[in-house]
Amino acid sequence: MLIVIPIFDGLTALDAVGPYEILSRLPGAQVTFAAATRGVYRTDQGSLGLHADEAFADVSACDVLCVPGGPGQAQAAGDHGLLGWLREMDACSTWTTSVCTGSLLLGAAGLLQGRRAVTHWLSMDLLAGFGALPHSDRVVVDGKYATAAGVSAGIDMALWLVGQIAGQTVAEAVQLSVEYAPEPPFDAGSPQTAPAEVVELVRRVARVTAAT
Amino acid sequence: MLIVIPIFDGLTALDAVGPYEILSRLPGAQVTFAAATRGVYRTDQGSLGLHADEAFADVSACDVLCVPGGPGQAQAAGDHGLLGWLREMDACSTWTTSVCTGSLLLGAAGLLQGRRAVTHWLSMDLLAGFGALPHSDRVVVDGKYATAAGVSAGIDMALWLVGQIAGQTVAEAVQLSVEYAPEPPFDAGSPQTAPAEVVELVRRVARVTAAT
Repeated sequence: MLIVIPIFDGLTALDAVGPYEILSRLPGAQVTFAAATRGVYRTDQGSLGLHADEAFADVSACDVLCVPGGPGQAQAAGDHGLLGWLREMDACSTWTTSVCTGSLLLGAAGLLQGRRAVTHWLSMDLLAGFGALPHSDRVVVDGKYATAAGVSAGIDMALWLVGQIAGQTVAEAVQLSVEYAPEPPFDAGSPQTAPAEVVELVRRVARVTAAT
Repeated sequence: MLIVIPIFDGLTALDAVGPYEILSRLPGAQVTFAAATRGVYRTDQGSLGLHADEAFADVSACDVLCVPGGPGQAQAAGDHGLLGWLREMDACSTWTTSVCTGSLLLGAAGLLQGRRAVTHWLSMDLLAGFGALPHSDRVVVDGKYATAAGVSAGIDMALWLVGQIAGQTVAEAVQLSVEYAPEPPFDAGSPQTAPAEVVELVRRVARVTAAT
């Protein structure tokens, strides 16, 4: 079973590495990072490079596609080579998945037309522009399409996916091996639970970042 | 504020990237990946490479040290250059932290003598061998030393640390920006909650892996 995670400059590291950490423990699975060309791609915070072992042109099919997001996704979406490759992967995939604004890449590739999907809470209004039906759940499944909410939600999505592919016992073993019994020290992980001034602070920072 | 994450071949990706994703959003902080020499290091599952931008020799001080673990930590601990460098970083750090079996590296460097600490649940008995006082909490704090349990616990530790450094509002903003409102699809993230057969399965796989 081949699982491919496409990467690009300006991706959010945890969008890709969260699912990788889970999916790479799926028995019999091989996870490959692919990009326009082989080499190191910088994540959005600038100080981490992830290495793509494969070029898109060298990956002609996969069983699971997992598309991360990040501020770089808009520029990546402008690369028609990427969007065509996403369509090619999707044509043969058993599961097509995304994390955070990775769903906007699936949308730009035309793969979410009429499908329920989710993205980072700050980008939900952009999903509808691709013909998707935005839902605010942490993981949204529509047929073979599983999209996860922002950044850390990819871990939950990937664990769910391991359960679908290999059954609950294997998924629980993966969860235990990464000791995923989260204890966030605060209750601010969604705009529904975060204090109003924190929601406004994050919105303001996002606007400033988008404008620069 | 300089935050350094040392990496090595055979590290567990999420041990490093979980805290990175959180700490890199701390206002005014610069996060750097360092290693024996600059270049790409392979994570334990083999198919991901993380790039170290700095060599240990080029980082002479830091404010926060965050040491990941993984199956490669035992071999990394054999490198006295690493252990000496960890001591050097610790001598000037405001916070010395670890994720998963990264605490065994801190222990091997002699930094956990008489201190409360935690590691991956499968490795708890090894901690005492370094003179540490093993505690089974998800994040264990003893003075400036904060150690996190297995793999995913680094996210919780890093969020707690952001709260300590920059206050709760900033930490909540970081939590919201990565939408960290976890919803694990199963309740098997600790040996206390996982079904007994799942605990035994993970123990068996660990024994087989250690023997090969």
